[in-house]
Amino acid sequence: MPAKSPLAPDRFPDLPAVDGLRLAAGHCGIDKHGRPDVMLAVMPEGGTVAGVLTRSLCPSAPVDWCRRALDDGRIRALVVNSANANAFTGAAGEAAVRATVDAAAARAGCRADEVFVASTGVIGETLPAHLIVDHLPRLFESLHPEAWAAAAEAIATTDTFFKGASATARIGGYPANIVGIAKGSGMIAPDMATMLVFLFTDACLPAAQLRPLLTHAVDRSFNCITVDGDTSTSDTVLLAATGRVDHPQPESWTDRLLGPFRRALTEVCRDLALQVVRDGEGAQKLVSITVSGASSSPSARKIGLAVANSPLVKTAIAGSDANWGRIVMAVGKSGQRADRDRLSVSIGGVKVAHNGVVVPGYDEAPVARHMAGREIDIAIDLGIGRGRATVWTCDLTHGYIDINADYRT
Amino acid sequence: MPAKSPLAPDRFPDLPAVDGLRLAAGHCGIDKHGRPDVMLAVMPEGGTVAGVLTRSLCPSAPVDWCRRALDDGRIRALVVNSANANAFTGAAGEAAVRATVDAAAARAGCRADEVFVASTGVIGETLPAHLIVDHLPRLFESLHPEAWAAAAEAIATTDTFFKGASATARIGGYPANIVGIAKGSGMIAPDMATMLVFLFTDACLPAAQLRPLLTHAVDRSFNCITVDGDTSTSDTVLLAATGRVDHPQPESWTDRLLGPFRRALTEVCRDLALQVVRDGEGAQKLVSITVSGASSSPSARKIGLAVANSPLVKTAIAGSDANWGRIVMAVGKSGQRADRDRLSVSIGGVKVAHNGVVVPGYDEAPVARHMAGREIDIAIDLGIGRGRATVWTCDLTHGYIDINADYRT
Repeated sequence: MPAKSPLAPDRFPDLPAVDGLRLAAGHCGIDKHGRPDVMLAVMPEGGTVAGVLTRSLCPSAPVDWCRRALDDGRIRALVVNSANANAFTGAAGEAAVRATVDAAAARAGCRADEVFVASTGVIGETLPAHLIVDHLPRLFESLHPEAWAAAAEAIATTDTFFKGASATARIGGYPANIVGIAKGSGMIAPDMATMLVFLFTDACLPAAQLRPLLTHAVDRSFNCITVDGDTSTSDTVLLAATGRVDHPQPESWTDRLLGPFRRALTEVCRDLALQVVRDGEGAQKLVSITVSGASSSPSARKIGLAVANSPLVKTAIAGSDANWGRIVMAVGKSGQRADRDRLSVSIGGVKVAHNGVVVPGYDEAPVARHMAGREIDIAIDLGIGRGRATVWTCDLTHGYIDINADYRT
Repeated sequence: MPAKSPLAPDRFPDLPAVDGLRLAAGHCGIDKHGRPDVMLAVMPEGGTVAGVLTRSLCPSAPVDWCRRALDDGRIRALVVNSANANAFTGAAGEAAVRATVDAAAARAGCRADEVFVASTGVIGETLPAHLIVDHLPRLFESLHPEAWAAAAEAIATTDTFFKGASATARIGGYPANIVGIAKGSGMIAPDMATMLVFLFTDACLPAAQLRPLLTHAVDRSFNCITVDGDTSTSDTVLLAATGRVDHPQPESWTDRLLGPFRRALTEVCRDLALQVVRDGEGAQKLVSITVSGASSSPSARKIGLAVANSPLVKTAIAGSDANWGRIVMAVGKSGQRADRDRLSVSIGGVKVAHNGVVVPGYDEAPVARHMAGREIDIAIDLGIGRGRATVWTCDLTHGYIDINADYRT
């Protein structure tokens, strides 16, 4: 495991159990260095699920499987392996998925399409599914309601720390837990990209409500982060509900009853998303970019991501350089509505450009101090509307080049 | 000037005169280190012009000026300065443009909108136009038909070599020269991006024909290169014709008479575009990416650019790593039509992936030798149509980070 990111939290959080859910993790032999490489989650009959999958048009075999299985919205088991992404593996990849879900379904006593799978690691190599299948009995025998840390470790690849988050929300007075684990070091793993996120709750909600709730949360978290703009063939976010809390049933996902749950889910997703950015490959600084005054909020997000993905902006931040010109350049290239002569840029709360020109004689000392720190705040006001969004990224450093250029040399 | 790119040509080419065109270059004082910082081109009455300008919605003041002046399509003079981009300078920037064109128009005896301007260098600082205005008399007195090298030097910023190219094409039997100079080190200059390209010909063609001819050539050259995906606020390509060659008049830009000219213009543009990539900041390798079998040629170009802009692909190339998985990842994220199971990838002429899976036992030795070289060829076949495009980029190295992160520290 490489040195821990300087932006990492102190330790893995204490995560509560999710009523009805049990977890196990272990080493089945895919990873050649003996690291944990497989996890299992099992839940009772009636489990519901929603998912958001990569938009890549060249997805991995597990993503293909999940996309089909999500139609029914029912889940009883989840099997995740690291050290092999099962991507670009053709018919052999599909067969590996099938072998895994069939074995898990037989053990869990459910249909194959109630088993979900995800894989992350090297690509283009056939997944040795028999190693997973042979290890499943041991996993089923060691299930435990609070094996969060072991599960988070088993799905990691180049992560320099393991990622988890939780919240509790009341639904009509009844507390429901939401717990999530994630892996992702930037959008990138040894050979490839991948962000995997698995969220569990003991709330009792149908898949038809979980889907918009998850989309709402993902739009405000994982879709607002970027490390290098590269998109994995395997990105997977799943939200599964065990249905064990006996709360009143909301009429729809926008029911007032669900307000606290919606906010808590978004908060857990945002916490995990920021942990992924904090583990961005080579990251030395966490960068928050807030765009306001845009023609709409989707437009604000696109502008924020254009800034967050600009290598020129990211290298300037790595160099602690308050280079507002590069920020305005990135706004200009976003293709979104903007008026150069109404643009304002603030760095660390100090306005450095206003109405498209530098603020004469702005105080450079606090800006320089801010840029030298670990957490950088950039605010961009377009001055043309009310659209607003915040996105997060990290800086682009020699560390990124080291990890990605020198990996196999 | 930083160390010359290892991909640079041996020397600046011998470039012929363009009948009717005269050039001058010098140091007017914008550059604090005494480097040449201004050039002038003058041509006779009847000069015609077409241009392609940055699509940035936050363009520089000179770009705003050129966009308006191009409507008429007439040109008598061109004034270009380096060391200051006149971008994000508000009303003062517009006044600086106006002062420059008025002074040049008075000297050239033409209308203000027959004078074109371009600026490149630091942004956000008011352009001291009086330095240019005061220097113009000396430039007008030193005009020379073959001052190409001096002109190319005067427009350079972080370029590590000066860029020029030429060709001769017959129009109905009469030879016309096409000569171009360019600046651009990646899309990037000290504080900012910028690619400037100035093309001159002694052919006699109306602006209405120059426009589609230039668009055709730019689509096959400058729009097919990328260093880091960042777009300048100042990118400018101009094509000016002196009209001195007495060739038969084509009826339109697609007239058979213009075939050789069209090809020659595209060739000059491609030559200059590749010189810009060869000078990409930190570039150690020139990368050619040919996409075939796409659903259309525009789709092929978008796929090629998605691969060329992927930090993961570019760092793998920097590390001489034949990482075809990252190439397929980038195809997948392009959003263009693709079928994972029909994709083929060749590196240095050796097929490494076919129908979406690795070619079992492909010969790795020649691929490794190819990846260790200076010029990398990647071919991607989508297997779903007849669309085809080639794009060019360079690798992403520690040198890029050095130049852009450590610039002002």
